Amino acid sequence: MFRIGQSTDIHQLVEGRKLIIGGVEIPHTKGLLGHSDADVLTHAIAESILGALALGDLGKHFPDTDPAYKDMDSIWMLGKVYDMMTEKGYRINNLDALVMIERPKMAPHIEAMRKNIANALHCDLEAVSIKATRGEKMGFVGREEGVQAQCVTLLTSI
Amino acid sequence: MFRIGQSTDIHQLVEGRKLIIGGVEIPHTKGLLGHSDADVLTHAIAESILGALALGDLGKHFPDTDPAYKDMDSIWMLGKVYDMMTEKGYRINNLDALVMIERPKMAPHIEAMRKNIANALHCDLEAVSIKATRGEKMGFVGREEGVQAQCVTLLTSI
Amino acid sequence: MFRIGQSTDIHQLVEGRKLIIGGVEIPHTKGLLGHSDADVLTHAIAESILGALALGDLGKHFPDTDPAYKDMDSIWMLGKVYDMMTEKGYRINNLDALVMIERPKMAPHIEAMRKNIANALHCDLEAVSIKATRGEKMGFVGREEGVQAQCVTLLTSI
Repeated sequence: MFRIGQSTDIHQLVEGRKLIIGGVEIPHTKGLLGHSDADVLTHAIAESILGALALGDLGKHFPDTDPAYKDMDSIWMLGKVYDMMTEKGYRINNLDALVMIERPKMAPHIEAMRKNIANALHCDLEAVSIKATRGEKMGFVGREEGVQAQCVTLLTSI
Repeated sequence: MFRIGQSTDIHQLVEGRKLIIGGVEIPHTKGLLGHSDADVLTHAIAESILGALALGDLGKHFPDTDPAYKDMDSIWMLGKVYDMMTEKGYRINNLDALVMIERPKMAPHIEAMRKNIANALHCDLEAVSIKATRGEKMGFVGREEGVQAQCVTLLTSI
Repeated sequence: MFRIGQSTDIHQLVEGRKLIIGGVEIPHTKGLLGHSDADVLTHAIAESILGALALGDLGKHFPDTDPAYKDMDSIWMLGKVYDMMTEKGYRINNLDALVMIERPKMAPHIEAMRKNIANALHCDLEAVSIKATRGEKMGFVGREEGVQAQCVTLLTSI
């Protein structure tokens, strides 16, 4: 039994915030705005799993109006999504994500991100693909106003 | 036998039109512009199925230059796509969609949308996932100029 | 054994460049800007395969700082990605791509594109779906500043 899921997440890039992507704090002049740590990649991955299981969106499970999730560590949240997946009888077959960001370069951080995600999902590193691309100076990604991440996930029954 | 499909659909938000998403008429000051009822979510879902079957895009089957499709009910069109899928020997394994809209809130309407889609595709409610997110004030979604919907679908042979 | 992948690629539309999409040179007043031939569709397809195999992004394998890839034929590059896929023990189950471009119309060129992609990937034409849509005058696609292509791919073990 297989199930497919996908998601796209978007956050504004602003001054005075940390830039946390895939659980990695990346040195930069700006960071992502949000109620939680605004980890755009981890959110897209978590929501693609919820979607594959037809469990609704992230906002349903971790409302951004709930003080409990203020500055939340999104890798912790991904662990909670892992628990929901296990309870439904599924595991990660593989997932493939893309971070769309103009700067800084993601390449030096990709392996650390993959490890964080694979640890939270108790799966092999080979089941977690993370890629990055630029906005080519166009759109909100290209103008460095924000960052977008997207993911597709294939689940298989345990 | 499995087949995967995806699509993204975009429509402008304008005054003087109904806002119909997933077959649900949602009270709002603006609606979606298009030749048909411009149901952006149902279009993304229908086209992801056509794509999975390599049958071409929606415009090939329901040209927006054909008066027959003026103000067309997109849920009816999705039923036609269901017929094409059945004829090819496939059924829905599951699909996962995302509506990107700044306002109004989709949450109160998601269950009604899922029912409309599942009915048109003769599948279980559990096979239809619909999520929603905002544009975080960025891009045409964030500026409330338009709405985007995207979907991935996994088909399995009957 | 199945593996899923996805990608999105973006290139600017500028004067003085050829418009090459899916290996087809399309007559137009503008073309896509890039180090290689900037074939946005072939890049999205190639990277979705790399992603499915967790082999990293296109930039890792074909760096745009390498003079060897200046004006590179992206269909040739897709053949190299096919070799990597075969070596990993996988083949294309099917893929579904979408070109987001305001003008010119893609419909007359879709079948030629499918043939180019299927040839490079040594798969049936039925395994390659290519669709097109417009930006509805919104965003960088709608303003004709750029073109976006996206793809999901399902691989199966040989």
